[in-house]
Amino acid sequence: MKLPNYVKGQWSEGTSPGEALTDPVTGQELARISSQGINLAEALAFARTYGGPALRRLSYAQRAEILGKMADALVANRDEYFRISLLNLGANQADASFDVDGAIYTIKYYAKIGRALADGKMLKEGAAVSLSKSNAFAGQHLLMPAKGAAVFINAFNFPAWGLCEKAAPALLSGVPIVVKPASPTAWLTHRMVEDIVKADILPPGAISIICGSARDLLGHVREEDIVSFTGSADTAARIRSDDNILRRSVRVNIEADSINSAILGPDCAPDTDLFDLLGKEVVREMTLKAGQKCTTIRRIMVPRGQLKTFGDAVTAGLSPMKVGNPRNPEARVGPVVNKAQQTSCLEGLAKLKEECEVLFGGDKNFQPLDADVKESSFVQPALLSCKNGLDAKHVHDLEVFGPVATLVPYDDLEDLIALTRRGLGSLVASVFSNDPSFIRETILGIGDLHGRVLAVNSAVGAQHTGHGNVVPSCLHGGPGRAGGGEELAGLRALLLYHRRFVVQGPVDCITDLAGFCVNTASLYS
Amino acid sequence: MKLPNYVKGQWSEGTSPGEALTDPVTGQELARISSQGINLAEALAFARTYGGPALRRLSYAQRAEILGKMADALVANRDEYFRISLLNLGANQADASFDVDGAIYTIKYYAKIGRALADGKMLKEGAAVSLSKSNAFAGQHLLMPAKGAAVFINAFNFPAWGLCEKAAPALLSGVPIVVKPASPTAWLTHRMVEDIVKADILPPGAISIICGSARDLLGHVREEDIVSFTGSADTAARIRSDDNILRRSVRVNIEADSINSAILGPDCAPDTDLFDLLGKEVVREMTLKAGQKCTTIRRIMVPRGQLKTFGDAVTAGLSPMKVGNPRNPEARVGPVVNKAQQTSCLEGLAKLKEECEVLFGGDKNFQPLDADVKESSFVQPALLSCKNGLDAKHVHDLEVFGPVATLVPYDDLEDLIALTRRGLGSLVASVFSNDPSFIRETILGIGDLHGRVLAVNSAVGAQHTGHGNVVPSCLHGGPGRAGGGEELAGLRALLLYHRRFVVQGPVDCITDLAGFCVNTASLYS
Repeated sequence: MKLPNYVKGQWSEGTSPGEALTDPVTGQELARISSQGINLAEALAFARTYGGPALRRLSYAQRAEILGKMADALVANRDEYFRISLLNLGANQADASFDVDGAIYTIKYYAKIGRALADGKMLKEGAAVSLSKSNAFAGQHLLMPAKGAAVFINAFNFPAWGLCEKAAPALLSGVPIVVKPASPTAWLTHRMVEDIVKADILPPGAISIICGSARDLLGHVREEDIVSFTGSADTAARIRSDDNILRRSVRVNIEADSINSAILGPDCAPDTDLFDLLGKEVVREMTLKAGQKCTTIRRIMVPRGQLKTFGDAVTAGLSPMKVGNPRNPEARVGPVVNKAQQTSCLEGLAKLKEECEVLFGGDKNFQPLDADVKESSFVQPALLSCKNGLDAKHVHDLEVFGPVATLVPYDDLEDLIALTRRGLGSLVASVFSNDPSFIRETILGIGDLHGRVLAVNSAVGAQHTGHGNVVPSCLHGGPGRAGGGEELAGLRALLLYHRRFVVQGPVDCITDLAGFCVNTASLYS
Repeated sequence: MKLPNYVKGQWSEGTSPGEALTDPVTGQELARISSQGINLAEALAFARTYGGPALRRLSYAQRAEILGKMADALVANRDEYFRISLLNLGANQADASFDVDGAIYTIKYYAKIGRALADGKMLKEGAAVSLSKSNAFAGQHLLMPAKGAAVFINAFNFPAWGLCEKAAPALLSGVPIVVKPASPTAWLTHRMVEDIVKADILPPGAISIICGSARDLLGHVREEDIVSFTGSADTAARIRSDDNILRRSVRVNIEADSINSAILGPDCAPDTDLFDLLGKEVVREMTLKAGQKCTTIRRIMVPRGQLKTFGDAVTAGLSPMKVGNPRNPEARVGPVVNKAQQTSCLEGLAKLKEECEVLFGGDKNFQPLDADVKESSFVQPALLSCKNGLDAKHVHDLEVFGPVATLVPYDDLEDLIALTRRGLGSLVASVFSNDPSFIRETILGIGDLHGRVLAVNSAVGAQHTGHGNVVPSCLHGGPGRAGGGEELAGLRALLLYHRRFVVQGPVDCITDLAGFCVNTASLYS
């Protein structure tokens, strides 16, 4: 089976034999993809010329309604997405749900909040400022939907959610989308696009998919376009320094590597609820999707005195979890996505071992349940401990993208903040403590280098939304190593797909334009 | 005279003979600058370690008060700035005022609006969003001042305003500044920094200046820093693709080339007020600062039938304006900044002539008033006409940074929008018309590719703020070729120097943090 590309409103198969998509449990080939022979310049031009204008003839509310229909089309095919997730990602029900149901939830969320924007062609930001003594001449800031295409170059770990969390705000903004899913797991993204196309919800040119190599795609983006990338810092740097992107100052949003932290407060002794709660969260984070989430806890900062007890607690949580074929109901932890990622994880693990002690797992010769070691891509969960955090390098710099986490002890608040900041910009950190001043000082010390900080005390307990869970009402993204991008955060996500400009003019001209606008106050509520 | 650098709270002279700053009228050397031997890594580290924390111990209102004192220190030395502007930029009173008084006005503006932010250490953005059924767990978006330094690499044309329009929002945000003025005109920036340092207003490390080459400066910026560049698109691309900046995703704000447009409405016949008003505006734009403003009108779109009459009107305005030594009161138009810029202008003009007819001036052998042709750097104003705008290339792509503008005829609205967009992203376009629907459709057609659109009708007339004038309450910057950056726009300018993040936590933890915050609603009013 070769998955065709969908560009210029039609399905076109690539001309080369292409790349193989495989089952990470059996190693079997599932499908092939190729973008060879597809005219990517024309694909983008079609999206800009037909998709964009057709979308922008609609109001925000009408586009929100379209999102609702897209969600319906996805819900109708949910079982198929779970089947593909199992085949192509080795995902069990929980792993597949995290991606697929997360995707559907996010689209539904934007369908709902998008309705609040009602009619209108643009967003009006703030009040008019007077620019003349008579007040006849004034300035008004506006946000206009970009007149280009939104190009998504996505990561392999979230083929469903990665598509939908970007597609929802782009389409709501009136910007057509062109998605280039990561090759190893392109099938699920492809199937979702196919279902949306079949449902005939979107105008021609509003959605396109390119499977396989991005080839010369970046060479054809323009000033009006937006490129949104999720993946490695190396690829991010290549995209940012692409000649055409530089020359045209194309807007680029990046979500890249992140060495996320979880912090156990000094007040959380063994046997307290928060000690247990964080222990469970670490185990969940390490094992869900085999640790292949950009938000997964990579470092756990614990008071030095709790290094052993907390390590024991996590080990006790990991020990009974069987790793293996998700078709066997006993298996709780699935594989990483393919052999290349398995090798990368094991190489990363070896580097971490240079400066860490192994508390649990990480045996490269372990035997997964119901799977052939040679064909499958499992990594045994590994918990490490790094006694001298401030002297370590790999612990803070290397994102081992699998079921691997490291305990790092801290001595005091200053030490903790320095260790956490050593991640050089992360998506998320979580703080478990019942000491309000400890929580506050930690947030004030690290907030600027994070996109999200999760705080959990006993009053909240298990009601917290999870260290690694990205909710569409809150910011996803982070500075520095994490790429500096911003996604979601409710209607703020529309900012990426709009252009801010100011009109300075006669008051009646501004009033006239305001008639085409929705107030942005709702973006921030 | 060698101008010392100010880093680590002390003045240090560079060790090399350095570059010469010259008088563009006489060619005389005025001063030398060198950054050789200055440890730029330590300079940045000192700003981050001492300047930032000291600034951030103050509230927004206290920092606004500091801006007020800086404005006082600058006002006290205003005459000296006019003297230096005359010497180093060949600026007459009007030219110098545009830069110097614009700088002081901008600092005063931020001192005033900054007070509205009152006490607080951070900004609170929008309302809390509930994240649990019981509402005990919620999310709150916050904006925290960046914990790094703001590095300004500035342009030669605005040594005063370029410093102050960036310094004001950075310092108000609590971020220390390190300015690297463009070498040819570094003296004025240097003198302002010297006056601010002498006035002992800022804590140590809050302000630094590096004169001469930026050397390895970019190699030492970090995740917490912000780099703000104004200048050529080529240098912008070099900064954006710098290895260290890429690897750390350093936030970079760029304001680069811009081929700005002014549009004469189809309703504006000769002898109407708007026809005359735009004619005067074009003459002013071409001659003020010898056309060396990033916002200067480069293209004038006129109804095809008015090509000749409008060209005649501008020619009539330009003809009596004498070009030459600003020390002679008869001279109305000054020089460009140096021989290199003069050469660049003449080369650009030659390229424009390949596809344009010369309506006025542009004689490379013209004789400036009271100046030696060999030593001085004058460019005779040149008005060109390009009959087939859509076939032209240089007219839309080449920013001739001097007193040069080109008339481009249009046939209808569609044609006009295509021509204007051909600038591929500009800082500003202005529309002169009494037809509200023409104004509206033009704005809807070009707004997304501009940072600012100025609309002028007869009711407003001369009350408009000017095509090329940047007012601190309105956005300055533009997409695409203009660099994609955003500056000013009132308190929105603080966004560049803050980091958005979300706290997800117990409601009382969020309430506690909110006590350190100011609401951002005021950012957009």
